[in-house]
Amino acid sequence: MRVVMKFGGTSMAGIERIRHVARLVERQAASSETCVVVSAMAGETDRLVQFCKEAAAHHDPREYDVVVASGEQVTAGLLAMTLQNAGLEARSFMGWQLLEASGVHGNARVEKIESGALDGALRAGTVAVIPGFQGRTEEGRIATLGRGGSDTSAVAIAAGLRADRCDIYTDVAGVYTTDPRIEPTARKLEAVGAEEMLELAGAGAKVLQVRSVGLAIREDMPLTVRSAFEDEPGTHIITNWEEADMERIAISGIAADRSEALVKLAASDRPGRLAAALRALASEGLSVDMVAQGPDSLHFTVPKTNLARALKALDGAKDAIGQTAVTSDDNVAKVSVVGVGIRSNPELAAKVFDVLADRQVPLLAATLSELKASALVPDEQVDVAVRALHAAFELGE
Amino acid sequence: MRVVMKFGGTSMAGIERIRHVARLVERQAASSETCVVVSAMAGETDRLVQFCKEAAAHHDPREYDVVVASGEQVTAGLLAMTLQNAGLEARSFMGWQLLEASGVHGNARVEKIESGALDGALRAGTVAVIPGFQGRTEEGRIATLGRGGSDTSAVAIAAGLRADRCDIYTDVAGVYTTDPRIEPTARKLEAVGAEEMLELAGAGAKVLQVRSVGLAIREDMPLTVRSAFEDEPGTHIITNWEEADMERIAISGIAADRSEALVKLAASDRPGRLAAALRALASEGLSVDMVAQGPDSLHFTVPKTNLARALKALDGAKDAIGQTAVTSDDNVAKVSVVGVGIRSNPELAAKVFDVLADRQVPLLAATLSELKASALVPDEQVDVAVRALHAAFELGE
Repeated sequence: MRVVMKFGGTSMAGIERIRHVARLVERQAASSETCVVVSAMAGETDRLVQFCKEAAAHHDPREYDVVVASGEQVTAGLLAMTLQNAGLEARSFMGWQLLEASGVHGNARVEKIESGALDGALRAGTVAVIPGFQGRTEEGRIATLGRGGSDTSAVAIAAGLRADRCDIYTDVAGVYTTDPRIEPTARKLEAVGAEEMLELAGAGAKVLQVRSVGLAIREDMPLTVRSAFEDEPGTHIITNWEEADMERIAISGIAADRSEALVKLAASDRPGRLAAALRALASEGLSVDMVAQGPDSLHFTVPKTNLARALKALDGAKDAIGQTAVTSDDNVAKVSVVGVGIRSNPELAAKVFDVLADRQVPLLAATLSELKASALVPDEQVDVAVRALHAAFELGE
Repeated sequence: MRVVMKFGGTSMAGIERIRHVARLVERQAASSETCVVVSAMAGETDRLVQFCKEAAAHHDPREYDVVVASGEQVTAGLLAMTLQNAGLEARSFMGWQLLEASGVHGNARVEKIESGALDGALRAGTVAVIPGFQGRTEEGRIATLGRGGSDTSAVAIAAGLRADRCDIYTDVAGVYTTDPRIEPTARKLEAVGAEEMLELAGAGAKVLQVRSVGLAIREDMPLTVRSAFEDEPGTHIITNWEEADMERIAISGIAADRSEALVKLAASDRPGRLAAALRALASEGLSVDMVAQGPDSLHFTVPKTNLARALKALDGAKDAIGQTAVTSDDNVAKVSVVGVGIRSNPELAAKVFDVLADRQVPLLAATLSELKASALVPDEQVDVAVRALHAAFELGE
C-alpha cells in the first residue's frame, strides 16, 4: 500500500499545525508507504508575490518562480524534522530533485516524476516530504505550477509513484450537496464524479485545483478530499469512468455562485452581433459565462472583478455590435443543479426551472449543459432558490 | 575585468534597499562582468531558525538546511528581477546549480564551483545573482555553509570565476584603527593585512566571516570591505603575502573586546593543573583565551556567555586541578594593539604596557602573540585605555 497525502496552506500555518499534520502522517505511515506533499504556510505565498510586485511591475517569471517556490521549501523541511522528532524516518525531497516541468514559468506543467530515489526511500520505510507547486525545467531552473499547483503536484507524484491513492487534506471536510451555510441539511457526499465536484466546488470553497482533477482522471488516480482538522472520512472523487457509471447519482448537489455580474446590451438582432461582442471581450482576455439572446437584447455574465473592463471593451466595439445601450447588474447569483442526471434525464432540467417558478424566483438567465442546469437569479433570492432546489431533489440528510 | 559583489542582510532588507543595491550593481556592471552574491533579508534567517527550533529541539541538519536556505533564494530572485526592471540583463543561479559543498550540513565547506553556465552568462553580459550561504552536497541535497557563510560563498565564487576582485558591501564603511564610538579620531584604513583585520574586527563589528578571509588568502583573491550605504572607498584586505610585506604597517589599530569574563582559580602550583583545567573545559566544548599562571593561582578568560558552564566544568574537575577556590569577574574587557609590528618589534609590545601603566590602568592579565599585544583591564577603564593607546601609536587622523 502506498499513499500520497497532500496538505494545504491552512494546515501548514505555523509549527503547532505542522505538528498536527505530523500526527496524521504518523497514523497513515503505520499502514502504508507514505509520501507527503505540502503547501507553503497560509499567507506566505502572498507575501512573496507582493515582494515580486514591489520589485518590478513586469517581473521575469523565472525569477518569480525562484522567489515564490521558497515557501513550500520551508514547510517541507519543517515537516520532515517534525516527523523525525516524533520518531519517524523522514526526509524532504526538493521539487528540483524529482519533478520535471515544462511550459510557462509561473504556470508550468508536470512533465515527469523522477521517482528513483523517492521510490527507494519509500520502500525503505522513510516518509518522503515534498514541496508542492514546483519542479525543475529542462534548463535546470525552478518552475512553479501556478497558484494551487500543490494539488497537481500531489496527483502527479502519486501517479509517478504508482500510489494506491492520493488524499487531499484541506480545510473543508469534503464535497457537500450544497453550501451548509445556506442549507443546514446539506450532506457530505461519500463519492462524487470529478466533473460534478468541479461544478459544485466552482465558485464556493475551492476544494481542488481543476488541473489536478484532470490529471487524476487521465492517470486514473483515486482521489479523496478530507478534512485536516476533523477525523472524518472525506469525499471520494470518482476519476475512473467505469467506476463512475456504477456509482454516480443523478443529482449530486446545488451550487451557488455570487462571482458573476450580468451585462445587458440593447442591440437589434443582426448577424454577428454576438460574435462581435465576444470578440471584443476576448481581445481583453475576458470570458463570458451565461449567454441569452433576445430579439433586441443580448445578455451574458462576466466575473464581477472584470465588469469594468468588460464594459469598456464593449463600448470600444459598439459599432460592430450595433449596441445602443449597455446596462449591468452585479446583484445577481447563479444557482446550478449539478449531476450526470441532467445529461441523461431532460425532465430533471425542467424540474429545476419549475421549482424556481413555484417559489416566484425571477429567472434573469438560464443555461443548460451536460452536467448542470443553471439559473441566474437576483442576489437576495439565492438562499431561497438553493433551499428549494435542495429539498425538491431530496438531497438533505 | 570581472568583479564579484556581495551584499549582506541589512542591504537586502526590503524592496527599497534591494533597489538601492541594484543601482550599485548597475554602476559596477557598466565597467565589468559582474556577479552578485546576496544574503537573506535581515531577520529572515533568524525567523527560519526559530521555526526549526520550534519544530524539533534536535533537528536534522539536512532539513534545517532546506528551511534556512530559502531566505537567500528569495532575495536572489528579487534582486534579479529588480535589475531586469532597471534594464539590465540579469538572472539568478541557485546554490544547488553551481556550488558543490561537502562536510557537515549546516556548516558545510565549499568544495568546487561549477562555473560553466555562470561563466557563459557573464561573458554574454548578464549580471548573475547567486544566493549566498548555500550549495549542493554530493548526494544532491541543499547544504548551508554556517552563519555568515555568504562571505565565504562570495570569495569561493570569485575564485571559481577567476574574478579580479571580490567586494564585500556591508553596513560599516571599512576597517578602522579603533571603534569610532570610543575614539572619535579613529581612521578608516585604506588597506589592512587579513589577520590584523580579523583581530581588529574580532569582537566588535563582525566585518567578515573568518573562513572567507582564510579562503581569500588561500585563493589569493583581492578582497575589499566597503559600505553599501555610503559612496566611499572601503578598506582593501591584503590577502597576498608579497603585497603584504610591502604595504603592511607596524600597528594597524586598537581592538576592544567586552565579550570575555575572567576566571581565577586558587590552586597550588603542581604539574598538570593547567592541563586538567583546560581538559575539563574542552570536554564541554569551551575554549579559553588569555591565560596567566602564578604560583598559587591560575587566571584565564572565557566567553561571558559560557561562564556558568565553565564554572560548572571546573567544579567537576576540582580534584584533578587541585583548586581550592574559584572566583570570576565579568566586568572586564580586553584591549589589544594589533599589527605586524608586534611580531618584528618587541619594543612596541613593551610600549603597550607602558602606556597603560602611565594612565594607571590596572592590568588583570596580559598576553602577547605574533600579531597583537592584549591587556585585560577593568571594564570601566576600557575607553581610557583605547584612547591612550590610539594616541600613543599615532593612529588618529
